[in-house]
Order: sequence, then structure tokens, then C-alpha cells
Amino acid sequence: MKRVGPGTRSILPALILTATGACMLNAQSNTPLNIMPLPAKVERGDGSLKIDASFHIAFAGYREPRLEHAGLRLERQIQRQTGLVILHANKSAGPATLEVTTDRESKAIQELGEDESYKLDVTPTGAKLHAANPLGTLRGLHTFLQLIAITPDGFSVPALHIEDRPRFPWRGLMIDSGRHFIPLDVIKRNLDGMEAVKMNVFHWHLSDNQGFRAESRKFPRLHEQGSDGLFYTQEEIRDIVEYARDRGIRVVPEFDMPGHSTAWFAGYPELASGSGPYGIERKWGIFDPAMDPTDEKTYKFLNEFIGEMARLFPDQFFHIGGDEVNGKEWDANPKIQAFMKARHIKNNLELQAYFSGRVQDLVTKHKKAPVGWDEVLVPGVSKTIVIQSWRGVDSLAAAAKMGYRGILSNGYYLDLGWSAARHYAMDPLGGPAAALTPEQKQLILGGESCIWSEYVNAENIDSRIWPRNAAIAERLWSPDGTTDVASMYARMDTESTRLEWLGLTHRSFQRVMLQRIAGSWTPAEFDALRALAQALEHQKDYSREASAGNPPTSLTPLNRLVDAVHPESEGSRRFSVLVDQFVGSSCKDSTVGAQIRAELQEWTSIEDRLQPLAQRSHLVKEAAPASSALSQAAKIAMDALDAIQKGAPLPADQKKIQLDSLNALEQQAHKSQLTLPELPAFQKLVEAASAGGVCTK
Amino acid sequence: MKRVGPGTRSILPALILTATGACMLNAQSNTPLNIMPLPAKVERGDGSLKIDASFHIAFAGYREPRLEHAGLRLERQIQRQTGLVILHANKSAGPATLEVTTDRESKAIQELGEDESYKLDVTPTGAKLHAANPLGTLRGLHTFLQLIAITPDGFSVPALHIEDRPRFPWRGLMIDSGRHFIPLDVIKRNLDGMEAVKMNVFHWHLSDNQGFRAESRKFPRLHEQGSDGLFYTQEEIRDIVEYARDRGIRVVPEFDMPGHSTAWFAGYPELASGSGPYGIERKWGIFDPAMDPTDEKTYKFLNEFIGEMARLFPDQFFHIGGDEVNGKEWDANPKIQAFMKARHIKNNLELQAYFSGRVQDLVTKHKKAPVGWDEVLVPGVSKTIVIQSWRGVDSLAAAAKMGYRGILSNGYYLDLGWSAARHYAMDPLGGPAAALTPEQKQLILGGESCIWSEYVNAENIDSRIWPRNAAIAERLWSPDGTTDVASMYARMDTESTRLEWLGLTHRSFQRVMLQRIAGSWTPAEFDALRALAQALEHQKDYSREASAGNPPTSLTPLNRLVDAVHPESEGSRRFSVLVDQFVGSSCKDSTVGAQIRAELQEWTSIEDRLQPLAQRSHLVKEAAPASSALSQAAKIAMDALDAIQKGAPLPADQKKIQLDSLNALEQQAHKSQLTLPELPAFQKLVEAASAGGVCTK
Repeated sequence: MKRVGPGTRSILPALILTATGACMLNAQSNTPLNIMPLPAKVERGDGSLKIDASFHIAFAGYREPRLEHAGLRLERQIQRQTGLVILHANKSAGPATLEVTTDRESKAIQELGEDESYKLDVTPTGAKLHAANPLGTLRGLHTFLQLIAITPDGFSVPALHIEDRPRFPWRGLMIDSGRHFIPLDVIKRNLDGMEAVKMNVFHWHLSDNQGFRAESRKFPRLHEQGSDGLFYTQEEIRDIVEYARDRGIRVVPEFDMPGHSTAWFAGYPELASGSGPYGIERKWGIFDPAMDPTDEKTYKFLNEFIGEMARLFPDQFFHIGGDEVNGKEWDANPKIQAFMKARHIKNNLELQAYFSGRVQDLVTKHKKAPVGWDEVLVPGVSKTIVIQSWRGVDSLAAAAKMGYRGILSNGYYLDLGWSAARHYAMDPLGGPAAALTPEQKQLILGGESCIWSEYVNAENIDSRIWPRNAAIAERLWSPDGTTDVASMYARMDTESTRLEWLGLTHRSFQRVMLQRIAGSWTPAEFDALRALAQALEHQKDYSREASAGNPPTSLTPLNRLVDAVHPESEGSRRFSVLVDQFVGSSCKDSTVGAQIRAELQEWTSIEDRLQPLAQRSHLVKEAAPASSALSQAAKIAMDALDAIQKGAPLPADQKKIQLDSLNALEQQAHKSQLTLPELPAFQKLVEAASAGGVCTK
Repeated sequence: MKRVGPGTRSILPALILTATGACMLNAQSNTPLNIMPLPAKVERGDGSLKIDASFHIAFAGYREPRLEHAGLRLERQIQRQTGLVILHANKSAGPATLEVTTDRESKAIQELGEDESYKLDVTPTGAKLHAANPLGTLRGLHTFLQLIAITPDGFSVPALHIEDRPRFPWRGLMIDSGRHFIPLDVIKRNLDGMEAVKMNVFHWHLSDNQGFRAESRKFPRLHEQGSDGLFYTQEEIRDIVEYARDRGIRVVPEFDMPGHSTAWFAGYPELASGSGPYGIERKWGIFDPAMDPTDEKTYKFLNEFIGEMARLFPDQFFHIGGDEVNGKEWDANPKIQAFMKARHIKNNLELQAYFSGRVQDLVTKHKKAPVGWDEVLVPGVSKTIVIQSWRGVDSLAAAAKMGYRGILSNGYYLDLGWSAARHYAMDPLGGPAAALTPEQKQLILGGESCIWSEYVNAENIDSRIWPRNAAIAERLWSPDGTTDVASMYARMDTESTRLEWLGLTHRSFQRVMLQRIAGSWTPAEFDALRALAQALEHQKDYSREASAGNPPTSLTPLNRLVDAVHPESEGSRRFSVLVDQFVGSSCKDSTVGAQIRAELQEWTSIEDRLQPLAQRSHLVKEAAPASSALSQAAKIAMDALDAIQKGAPLPADQKKIQLDSLNALEQQAHKSQLTLPELPAFQKLVEAASAGGVCTK
């Protein structure tokens, strides 16, 4: 292992930052480090390494094409981040800016738990990255990229010493390509994003009721009749696997069974437990169709199918789904009932356990370890299985106690629209898992964020994943003391910008969607629409479906304001911070008060400013309840601010009326499937303005 | 030919719109038609055709893969423009929304002057497109796309009848891949943009002093040593040719010779007239190196090279450049001087004519017609040549009088940063060409916009081409009476939005570049930077080079504010319209006055608001002269507005001081290579505010 030599050490300041303190200032440098996820250990040095057109990278030690590719990507990315012209072909002159030493190869097929650690030393004369294998090198290169910052004198990397390794070995993102097809280029740019935040598992949900997305040559009617023509060819899948491997990311395919499988039956109805006819499901929800667990033909089919897919996906793990079987087709099928009776299978849970066991055997036979959702954990199931918990940390801890490996996804469902802070607070080793023995804790491999795609398509998926996924990535990589939410947000905002250089569209998608919604506009009209979109969020959890008059389907256009807003409004987050500051100052801070007033003025005016657009565009008209709710709610907050600043407290009955109005306005926004994230801050202002409130004393 | 049947005709209103009036309102519909370029003839009907998820297109008559591709692209583009889910695989049900009839095939290799006409009929029950051949069909499909608009009830196309054909057969865009390499995907999205505005020639400038960008298998050192590794493989070139053909676009390659050829000599110095050594040129300008026109080896080489490229590029035309030879290497080479003496070649112009003639013979031998810049037109040159005029309409008209075909590029240089209106005013048949005979006018084939890439790279090239190129496209397609500038701008703004759906980045590039320039920021700081960028333009013509302290080279980063501003500021254009309205109302229109005041307030505050960023980022600091100039100039305009609204006219001496100050501030902005496009409007306000001005009477 490479050690930090005395020459480097000598310039390091005594101050050793803890992981969460890496963005704190130190005496030598007043630039916070915008690394995300935060490294295990950072020591700041003096001075900085200039990054200019002479930049080049050199590789020593173990070499392989993957490292060359990573070097080229690093150069390209530096060019994008800085705009410098770095000619790869002309880099012979002078010593390398970044010297990379890799000790040895990693496994040919990337495995769970391989060493991903690295050390990075930056001095004003050069940078050195050292890792045991290419996986660590890949991680360290992205830390280096994140350190490049603009300064008054050009671009540079601050001098420092980093020693870093992940907390969990399984740090994944699941993308649901079943419900909405997600094109190849979108998958690729999300793999780029995963690499940037050091995630290492791409869990690819490839089949569901609404679509079967992988080409099968053995059973071509799966993709031909189950996908509306929207599927990945085997060549494309191999391309993705290779693309991911280049970035140190494993690809775990999921073929959900025995439920969530209607799309299989469009081409192969004989697999189902009912009599059909079957076609691609267009609605969202849990449906009756399920594979027939009692027919040997099913297992013959699955044996061949799993064999084919096991060859296509080299990873050691193979996800078989197993969630949400309602059992209705089983109940209704006399042959299945007879089978259960003959085998003394008491209920559908046991029948599913029987099915799961048979499928796990097939997966094992094809040299893979199975992964399944919570439901696959039944008494007696083989210890080879990995449990992916969507139900909660409790079941994960319970599984670990029984000796099963698990990964956490509960709390990491990105489609629910939670704040980054709320995801960040979820810890795979939190709750009951905290009480596990060290050996049991080892069984908790990490976690996976999930983006289920009912309301997600190629256009808005990036915005539903990023930047919040970076907070989850940090939870899974950084030491467990990394819990400073303000620091997380500051670094996430910066990372969000960097992710755009990788081609992700989580910010840029909005303007073009709003242009479609507006159709044509004056600048003032468009400003109002943008201000509206940036002040709102889509409804949380599954409440959006409850609000929809006509339940949406997979054919419902995702072209509405609800599809164009961010899950977590940056503007609203900043406004809430301002209100907290203001109320915290007993409403004495008039500078902050003025900022709050300016924001409220903008929001109160939106309803009127949008009128002309609402008359021309059905998509703006549809959002009218929300724009009206925002403007009226902001007016209530403005009245509260006036009351505070005039020293005229709201009487108790008035306070109640205002709070009730705010709640009613929130309900009104739901008509557009939107929510007012400023509501708690507005409520605080009303409380503060009320007789006896903190600002009225 | 398909005729408009009485059933369709009967619903058409009597009002027949002229070409330039197509965006005027009529009684039946208050929606202007945002078609660009404007069709030759438009008749509005009653009602509209709904566009929803059931949309599908059917092809009748002649069929070919190119039409199928166009149909798929149309569907995809409708999905992007509307967000509707249109399942190509599921389109069997019901009658086609758009029925396309194509009579017969076009030429296997697209030729100059093929029929591109089409007729489009839209009624509330369906649309019919009819064309003689696939080229006309492609043009008509894009007109249909442009007609899709959002309404209070959904998306629809207004009922109408269009008969359309181009005014000129050669409507091109030249992209300079020599000075900066332009990646393949950037070329492709620009071809998409060209198709959208009905341009039909992609002129690909593939070699220059700073780079040789096409793979040659016969002479591999051309690209290996002349490109820094940045070149197009032959496979990629074939891909582009096919991609362009799919869109009805010819690809004319240009290999500039005998000058502009330093990059050739990096690998093949024996072609040059000097003794070298030669390497890729990094500076901009006109340089001495030129091919040796006296050595038979040169022609042997060019014969083989042109033969290779003639096979790679199927188009009938082959561009040999021929511009800007300074002759210094010829003067300095005794062998060349001896050759001239022996052959009675009196000067370098004649020597170049000799070279040109030889090269034209080679091009002709390889079954191509040559194209060259103005300079190739010398007495006796073959009539097969097409003259591309960069010097002006005069030389084009003169060439036509001598019987030479020509295309206009003077006035269409997009890199000069002119306004769309200024390009729009240039007409290939304007000036002296207006006096040509009809036969001579036929020789003027059209025109080509050009983007020379000294200050253009993959990141900002779209913004330098679009949307202004749409105005040039309209000049070359639409009838010669199409000259309403306000209509052009209104439609160009809409087309600019549509071009984004094709993937062009002419608007989206700016925010990411500004984020790089800022580094890190508060929202208020970033708003100030964006407001600054949107108020400024880069210097026009070639004055930017004059302003640069260190002359830029091909290695100079294009990461500065000057690289991130738009060539034509939309905000400034709107502001100028406001000022004209205000002054036109004798400054009585207080609503407009308030809008002007709000804009000026924003600009006056920018300098202060940017201070914190300027202290953190060298790229913001560098723009400080321009931000200060804008704020101070806006302050002068604000003082004028105050004077007007207070009824206190500026005395004559004060007026002069203010106007002088404005000019000085413009000079100050040049230090950042930027210009203040608001200056004329500011001057108008000062004039209006002065004693005796229109607003002080």
C-alpha cells in the first residue's frame, strides 16, 4: 500500500477534519470542499494545484483498458467543467498533473464487497491517486473531479490528503423500465451520475404488468408482444453492462414474478394462472394475473428463460421480484386449488413460497444468487438469497437476525417525492438494526434507491432521481457520523450542477416542458409560469393517484405542470430557511424580512400574471387551482408579515381562520395534483404574527 | 397532381393570405400561423384537427425506407412537442390522422433542383399531404409539425390549405469543422435543425490551417498528424451522409486549397511551397503556407485524394475552397518563380488560376462539379464551376452575367454576430442581381449561411447558428415578397423553441456555461449574472480579435462570458421595441414607460450585485468592464427617463456629455470583448429627453 510520504505530510495543517466537517473552513483555505459523498477522512493542506490546458493524467502499476477509458472520461469531464482545451493527443510534455497508481486487477466480473478504497494526495506541484484495484481508482478520480473549483486566478484543486472507503458494499439505484420504457441514452447518463456519486449497483427492473423490456431470443413473444415495440435488444443490454462495468457498476437484472407479470402473458398466456385473454396492462396498481406455480411447464419455461438471461447478465446476483401477489387467479383456478390440497399447501403465501423456492433453485442452478423483495423471506428459504426490503428497516433487521443478507430500499423510493433530508435520515443500520450484533450488521449490505416509473418517463426521470439520489449515495458511502443536513444540502446543490456536465437533464428539462405547457408567451407570462413551477412540488407518496379524477394509465401524457415541477423545490427550501431565521430573530431581522416580502410578492402576483396563458393553454388552465392556491396562501403569509412589522398581532380567531385557509388552499392545490411546500413556513409566519406568538411579544 | 377537391375548398374562407400575411389573424381563427419559412401560399379554413394519442400517419403511393423513417421521426417529434404518448406499434385502429401521398421516387443521389413542392390540406377530420417525390414530402411533414399548437382544449392543427415550393434550389449551411472540431452528434442535431427550416445543403468545411478532419485511407497522415486526433472516420462520414439524405439534405464536402492548408502539411510537407517545418496552425488568420502548384507530385496526390473523397461523398458537387492565398511562399520559392517565368505566368493570381484549373480538371475527372470561393472565378474558368460568393452580391451578379452559377454567402456569415434582421435583408437576387435577365437570375442558385469556428465549439455552436439561421432559411425558401421583419421575429422566436425539441442547445447552453463562470453562487448572484449575459452580445464582425489583448488561438478556452452570450439578445431587441413605442407616443405611454424603468433598474443594479462573484471567479472578474458599462449606461438612460417624466429637459451640453459617455461605455465593454446592444435605445432616450427632443416639446 502506498503511504503518504513525509514530503507531503509536512505541508498538512494540524487540523484534521472529521467527515462531516470537510466543508467547514480551516485556517489555510476558506474554500469548503464540495465533495459528495464525503470521504472517510480528509486533511487539508496549504496552497493548491493549478488545473490548466497542460493537465494530464498518467497511470502506473496495473493497467487495463477500463483505466484508459476512465482517464479519457476524466479529461473530457475536466474540459466540460472548466471549458479548458485539453488535447489528449498532445500530452507528452512535462510531468503528469495527476499520477494514478493501481496495485492490481479487480475481479473480471465485478463482485460484491471488492475493495473500493483509495488515497488521494494533492500538493501544489501535483496530485497522486493510489488504489488497490481499478474500482478504488474510479472512485478516487471522481473525488478529484469534484475538487476542481474556479478561483480568482483560474481553476485549481486545493492541497489535501484523503483516505476513503465505502461504509456499505451495495450502493444501488433501481430504475423501473417496465412501467415506462426508459431509453438507452437515459440509462447511460444515469450510470454516469451513479459513478459520480460512487454508487456501484444498477438494479434494472425489466418487466412488469405494463411492459416486458428485454429481448428474449428463446421466447421472442415476451418482448414482441409485451413491450409495444419498446424494449432493449440483447446487444443494447450487453452495451449497458459493459458501460456500467467501465464505471465500476454491477448490473442486477430483475424479472418480477410470479405477480407483476401481465406483460409476459401477452405473448405466453399459458404461463398464467387464469384463462385470459391477456394483454399489456395500461392501468397502475396491483393486478390479478400471476404465473401458475403448479404447472411444470412454468418451471421448464423459467429454466430456459433464466438460463438465457443469466448468460446475458454476468453479475452474480439475479433478482426475481416476488412482491405484491394478490392470489386471486390462484383462488379462482380449480387445478391450482387441487394442487394445494394434494400437497398440503395451506394458503397462497405458502404457494408463493413453493414457487419462490423452485425459482430460486433455477437461479442457483444457473450459478446466480437470488435477490427478492421482502415477500420472498419465508421460513426455510435458502440463505443464499438477498432480501431487498421495501417494507422497512424492521424486516431488514429481522432478516439479519435470521442470518439473511439484506439491502434497504424502504425510505429510498425516489418517486414518492420526499425531501433529500428525509431520505438522508434513513439508515440501513438505523432503528432496530442498530441493536444487531456486529456479525448481523455485516449481513446488511447497504441499500438501493428506487425510481418506480408510473409518473416518470425519459423526459422527467432525471429530475426524479437527481440531485436527491446524491444524498442517498452519501448515506451509503460516507461514515455513519455524516449527518449534517445543512452541509448535505450545500454540497448537493453543487453536485447538482456538476451532474449537468455529465449530461443529466434534471434541471434543464423544466424549461422545455414549461414552454410546451405555455405554448406561446410573453417573457412576463413565462416568468410567472416558471416561478409557479419552482414554488410547487408534486403530491407526495401515493396521494397523487387519489387526487386524480380519471385514474392515470401508462398512456396518460406526462406533460402537465405536475410532471414538470421538481420533487423538492430549492426555492421553497431556501424560503423556509429565511422564515426560520426571521422568526428566530423574533422577527427583528429586517434584511431577512425584506427578502421574505420580495418572495411573497412574487408569489401573490402569479395568479393574475398567469391568466392570459390559462386562457390559451389547457395545460396552464389545468394548473389554475394550484396557482390560485399559491397566490392566496402567499397573501395570507404577507398579511401575517404585515401584522408583525406593523406590531398589530392577529387575534386568536383570526389566526385560526388563516391557518384553516392555508389548509384549504393546500387541498385546492391537490386538484392539480400539486402541493405547496411553503405551507409550513407560511404557518410559522401566521403563528409568529398571532397574539402571544414569538414575534408579537 | 393532386388537386384540392371541392369538399375541402368549400370550407375555406374567402380570405386568401399572402405569404407574408400568413401570421395575420383571420375571421375564423385568431391564431397566427407560426410556420417558418413561410409557405408560398396559405389559405385558412374553419375549425381544426385534433392531435391526440390516436395520431397516426399513413403513406400511400410511392414508398421507401426514407419515408418510413420520416414518419417515425414525425411521431417522435409530435410526442416531444406535445408530451402525448403515441404508440407506433399500436396504430392500426382508425383512419390515419395524416395521409401522405408521394407520387414517385426522387433521384437516388439527391440532385440540385429536384422538385421539393408539396400541398397540405388540413380539415377537422384529417390532414392530407401530397408531394411529387419524397423531398417534397419531407418538407411538408415539417410544415405539419410547425402547425401543431396548444389550445384551450388540447393540441390541434388549424384547418388550411397550403401550396408550397422553394424559391431557390440551393439552401445551405456551412459548418467549419476545421478550426474547431465539431463532434458528430452536434453535426446531426444541426442537420435536424436544417431539415426543420427546409434547408437542403450541408456544406462541410473539413480542412483548414488548424485541422484536417476527414479520415483518408490513402493518405492517413492527413488526419493522423493534422487533427490532434479529432477527425471523422470514413464510417462516421458515411453515417452523416446517410443521416442527411434521410432528411433531404445534400452533403457537399470542402477541402480548401491551395491556401488554408497548413494542416495537410503536418503529415505531407512535400505538398507545400515552402521548406517547413509544418505543424497544425494554432493561431487565427491568413497564413503563408500554400500547396506547390508547380510540382506534378501535388496533382498526383490530389488526384488520388479527390478520387478517394469523391467516392466517400456521393454528391455531384465538390468544394475546393480557393480563398485567401497570400502568395508569400510562392514568392519565396525560386523553383516556383522559375516555373512562372517559363510558363509566362505573370503573377500569383494567374498561378492560382493555373492551380485551380488543374484541380477542377481532377474534380471533373472524378465526376463531380467543382465549387469554389469567389477567387476561383478567373477568366476562362470552366462553366461547370459554382461560385460561392463571400465577397458580395456584386461579384455574384457579375459571375451570373458571365454565365456562371453562384450561391451567396456574403451577408450570411453567422459568426459575425449580425442580427437576424440584417441577414434577412440580404437577398441573393438583391442589389445588382435585381437587374439581371431571367436567364441570368436562374444561375443564382441560392445561398449558404456559414459558421466559421474561430470562436465556436461544440458547446456554443448551436447558439451561433440558431435561431438566426431560420431567418436565412426563410429568405432562401419563401417568396421574394416575404420581408415583414416583425413577423419574422415573432415566428423565429417560436421556431427557436421548436428547435429545442430537436435537441439543439442554442438556449440551454447558456445556463450551464454561466454556472461554470460563476463557480458557486447565491440565487441572487446568479440572477445578476444571467441578466448581464442576456443584456450583452459579443462584438460584431472581426472586432473581437482587435479587442483581444493576447490574440486568441485554437487552444484558447471558449469559457468566457463573451462565449456564453447570445449573438442577438432577445431582451435587448424587446427593449428597443419598447423604447420605440415610448418615444413614438411622445413619451406619454406610462405603461410602457414603467416597463422601460423596470428593465433599467435591473441593469443599473447588476454591477453591484456581481461584486461578490467577481471576487471569487476570474471569469466573472474578466467581465467586470462590461457589467460596469451596462450598469452605468443604464443609469444614463434612467436619468433621461427621469428627465422626461419630470418634464425637465436635458440642456444641450448635458446631452452631449451623456451621449459621449454612452460611447465611452461601449468602448469599455469591448475590454471584455462584449458590446451593449441597448446603446441605440439608450441614445434615443437621451435624445428624447433633450431640449427640443420629441418628448420635451
